[in-house]
Amino acid sequence: MRLLFTPQLNPATESGWRRRWFEIIYHHDTPPARNFDLLLILTILASVIVIMLDSDPWLHIDHAQALYRIEWGFTLVFTAEYLLRLVVVKRPLRYALSMWGVIDLLSILPTYLSFFLPGTQALLVVRILRVLRVFRILKLTRYVEEGSVLTGALWRSRRKIFLFVSVLLTIALIFGALMYVIEGPEYGFSTIPTGMYWAIVTMATVGFGDLAPQTGIGRLITSTLILIGYSIIAVPTGIYTAELATSMRRAKGNERERHDNRGCPVCGLEGHESDARYCRRCGGALPELMD
Amino acid sequence: MRLLFTPQLNPATESGWRRRWFEIIYHHDTPPARNFDLLLILTILASVIVIMLDSDPWLHIDHAQALYRIEWGFTLVFTAEYLLRLVVVKRPLRYALSMWGVIDLLSILPTYLSFFLPGTQALLVVRILRVLRVFRILKLTRYVEEGSVLTGALWRSRRKIFLFVSVLLTIALIFGALMYVIEGPEYGFSTIPTGMYWAIVTMATVGFGDLAPQTGIGRLITSTLILIGYSIIAVPTGIYTAELATSMRRAKGNERERHDNRGCPVCGLEGHESDARYCRRCGGALPELMD
Amino acid sequence: MRLLFTPQLNPATESGWRRRWFEIIYHHDTPPARNFDLLLILTILASVIVIMLDSDPWLHIDHAQALYRIEWGFTLVFTAEYLLRLVVVKRPLRYALSMWGVIDLLSILPTYLSFFLPGTQALLVVRILRVLRVFRILKLTRYVEEGSVLTGALWRSRRKIFLFVSVLLTIALIFGALMYVIEGPEYGFSTIPTGMYWAIVTMATVGFGDLAPQTGIGRLITSTLILIGYSIIAVPTGIYTAELATSMRRAKGNERERHDNRGCPVCGLEGHESDARYCRRCGGALPELMD
Amino acid sequence: MRLLFTPQLNPATESGWRRRWFEIIYHHDTPPARNFDLLLILTILASVIVIMLDSDPWLHIDHAQALYRIEWGFTLVFTAEYLLRLVVVKRPLRYALSMWGVIDLLSILPTYLSFFLPGTQALLVVRILRVLRVFRILKLTRYVEEGSVLTGALWRSRRKIFLFVSVLLTIALIFGALMYVIEGPEYGFSTIPTGMYWAIVTMATVGFGDLAPQTGIGRLITSTLILIGYSIIAVPTGIYTAELATSMRRAKGNERERHDNRGCPVCGLEGHESDARYCRRCGGALPELMD
Repeated sequence: MRLLFTPQLNPATESGWRRRWFEIIYHHDTPPARNFDLLLILTILASVIVIMLDSDPWLHIDHAQALYRIEWGFTLVFTAEYLLRLVVVKRPLRYALSMWGVIDLLSILPTYLSFFLPGTQALLVVRILRVLRVFRILKLTRYVEEGSVLTGALWRSRRKIFLFVSVLLTIALIFGALMYVIEGPEYGFSTIPTGMYWAIVTMATVGFGDLAPQTGIGRLITSTLILIGYSIIAVPTGIYTAELATSMRRAKGNERERHDNRGCPVCGLEGHESDARYCRRCGGALPELMD
Repeated sequence: MRLLFTPQLNPATESGWRRRWFEIIYHHDTPPARNFDLLLILTILASVIVIMLDSDPWLHIDHAQALYRIEWGFTLVFTAEYLLRLVVVKRPLRYALSMWGVIDLLSILPTYLSFFLPGTQALLVVRILRVLRVFRILKLTRYVEEGSVLTGALWRSRRKIFLFVSVLLTIALIFGALMYVIEGPEYGFSTIPTGMYWAIVTMATVGFGDLAPQTGIGRLITSTLILIGYSIIAVPTGIYTAELATSMRRAKGNERERHDNRGCPVCGLEGHESDARYCRRCGGALPELMD
Repeated sequence: MRLLFTPQLNPATESGWRRRWFEIIYHHDTPPARNFDLLLILTILASVIVIMLDSDPWLHIDHAQALYRIEWGFTLVFTAEYLLRLVVVKRPLRYALSMWGVIDLLSILPTYLSFFLPGTQALLVVRILRVLRVFRILKLTRYVEEGSVLTGALWRSRRKIFLFVSVLLTIALIFGALMYVIEGPEYGFSTIPTGMYWAIVTMATVGFGDLAPQTGIGRLITSTLILIGYSIIAVPTGIYTAELATSMRRAKGNERERHDNRGCPVCGLEGHESDARYCRRCGGALPELMD
Repeated sequence: MRLLFTPQLNPATESGWRRRWFEIIYHHDTPPARNFDLLLILTILASVIVIMLDSDPWLHIDHAQALYRIEWGFTLVFTAEYLLRLVVVKRPLRYALSMWGVIDLLSILPTYLSFFLPGTQALLVVRILRVLRVFRILKLTRYVEEGSVLTGALWRSRRKIFLFVSVLLTIALIFGALMYVIEGPEYGFSTIPTGMYWAIVTMATVGFGDLAPQTGIGRLITSTLILIGYSIIAVPTGIYTAELATSMRRAKGNERERHDNRGCPVCGLEGHESDARYCRRCGGALPELMD
């Protein structure tokens, strides 16, 4: 599965309807391509809303037939779109195995599987598969350009964040085990994993309250855990802000670098602006700027 | 509805009481205008406190008559103020359709509507309408100058924040649907929207605890969701801090610009560095820099 | 009440025991003064621990007599210290009305008041007054120098934070009133102030769960409120970080300013380091640096 | 107990198997050393998972014998590793008293203690000791280099964070005592320490909801406490980000230092600016700058 995949036109079909559809589906800069994108987003949102409505038990009983048909309608539309994507692209298999190809397939598969797996037991399985169809909405991010700045900084922070999460899990494990011993099963801390779940809920300041310390020493340990969590909540923020600032400084540095590599032949001063033709100190002519 | 509206004096009434009242109501720099603003803010706060007291069932029963009269008193005062605003301004309709005009109207309308819709059923409707009167307090922000820096940075971050909220909602949808399938209606996750509500409550680290996972796998998924939420809580902070820093750097850039108000006497180029003695374009001698 | 008060020696007592004690109590740089500070901090902490132990109903019953005596012991010690402070300082009244003077008084007063107000009803009143004695611990911050950086940045941010809290309260009022109308008293939202309390608890991501939305529309509004709170949680962080960065930049700017005011008499170059005696460009002798 | 300990080879065993094992265990740069590290991490993780599974009451009953044997197996493996570490290092005692030496010992001791303390009463004690075995996972951080940047900034912020936590505890004490007086034992605020626990849970925005204010004045105080907590949640973030930025600036300063590696040929002064051509102290000509 490849994360990034640049779709290319099938050269055998340089002209004709396939070329036209390739540009409509995979490009985003012509009016028909933009209309296609917009229509697709609205269809995805509509299908997600139908899934959400279908999950309501009262609506499901009252409008079972209608919802079933709408569901199949959406599935057929997305199937047609999926096949079209495969037909017009140069390497259909590479697309099918790319991230978006897999998501496209996952968003239509469950409805077909529910067809081949009828019966009472399968019903529950289908419900699980059906949920995967909400992945359709992930397609939305494909259309947003601005996201790359935000995800870029997150991506470069991945090691630090992974390390941070590891430390968090270690602390959660130690405190979860402590609470399992101190509070014990009688107050709901029935296993160490349960204690870990409680420690994560507490340290991240969620605090459901389904599990809460009842003993004095348990409350003391909880207070300690909260103060630890409160003190290190600053760490991911610091990492991300620093990473964002670094990328800004690098961009600025590149800019300066570009117009910094000339020394004045007369007095030797460096650091001229990129449009300078004469030295600002001695007035001597500067060499041409080469990028 | 226009967000920003610069009130202008009606030119037909250049002199007389309308001019005087225009300056009192729409200006904020003369002593009478300041006293008017202060009086208005205090009246708004007093009326909001009365609404809050009226919501208490015991106070409502004991002082029904008195609260009803006070309510009408405030409404008449604000109506008079609203009419006065319309009379003295140049384009009354544009004011009425501006953001503050609509809020001014909404803050007096419910009481009048309760007059035309009497009876038992209307009582509940009036309650809803009455709540809108708290919009009066929004007027307060009009008087605070310092807010523009904070809201400005928020406004410039609007796209990134919108994108961030979209990603948040997508994650909430996927995890809400997962919990709907795994925990199911028997533990309160009765619909996918309910699951989404729970996922938002969890990811934003609110954690009411009215819905909480009971199964082992549900708790594992919850821990994952919390760690995701904890890792990306840094994103809005990073965005906002970066935006604030950018606006500061821009302000600094403006300042430097001010220093470099020298034009080259030969070619007229501006924007020289502060230590420059020769024009970087034509090599002509620059005048001395004066701060 | 004055926040800042620089204690001065009573000139009439330039020598003798009062001078010695003034230096021990109000100074912090000689060994006896340091020992006095340390002893005082430990005594304050011990008295706070005794108050905390006394609040436990079992300990209170079992050791009522002992705790009562220890309580009086601490009160007498702190009274002696308070009187000593008044005796050795130049202007006793100014000290008594300064912030620390008031706190010193408040930390001993409740025990004396419990003496003059006996009886069953008074018992509860004394409990309230007793709580004020924990103000003693505030004395601790007096000894920490490092706090001034942190509180300084908070103090300069006070207007922005006040504005931020005002906006927060306005949003809380609107959403609290909305929930009062939608959820109503049957789900615990009995008054608008109760709704405001719930909105603050929700927006600040505390989320006790004692009040939680039960209706679908209530949950939708809650999700909106949470996203608003989540988006603006970045604002105080941004304000504070920016204020800290500004104070750092200002400190740096002052430093550069200090050694920037010399121009080379030969070539005119500015921006020399503070220990420079010759121009780094032309080697000309620089004038003496005057601070 | 020493935090940092640089293991050295025993000079008496410059060659032979001990030298080989020393490099495998304490070094991390040769293929065998890397394989050893990986194997050790996987073994630690496996043993922690076994402890977690063992805490489940159903699994414990069904597989008591198997889990007991696996537990002993892990203990023997870690004991062998611990002894090997002691044998090959130059100063075994210093290693045993270093932080990692103590953790290594703690991670094997509980199982042996459970052997010498049989009986029903001892069972609970062993459970407590057993928990200490999760310290094994702390070994993991030893292998991560990136952590030093994050922990370094935390370590330099330790004083400010300690001060911040002190202020937090003081506020928690005052508000906890207030709630103890106002809400009282009938709503669960049975002691002042309980009130403190509640105040910490509230201020850090955890909000379990096991204790929640029921009276109007209690809710007003809670709202105040939440707003205080919300306003100062920015402080640790500001401290940490500032500390991270400082360390970056220092790194940048080092880089500049590197450029200015020219000493004055006349007086020997170093640390010149990059555009300096004459020594700023003696006015002697400087050599050309080479990058």
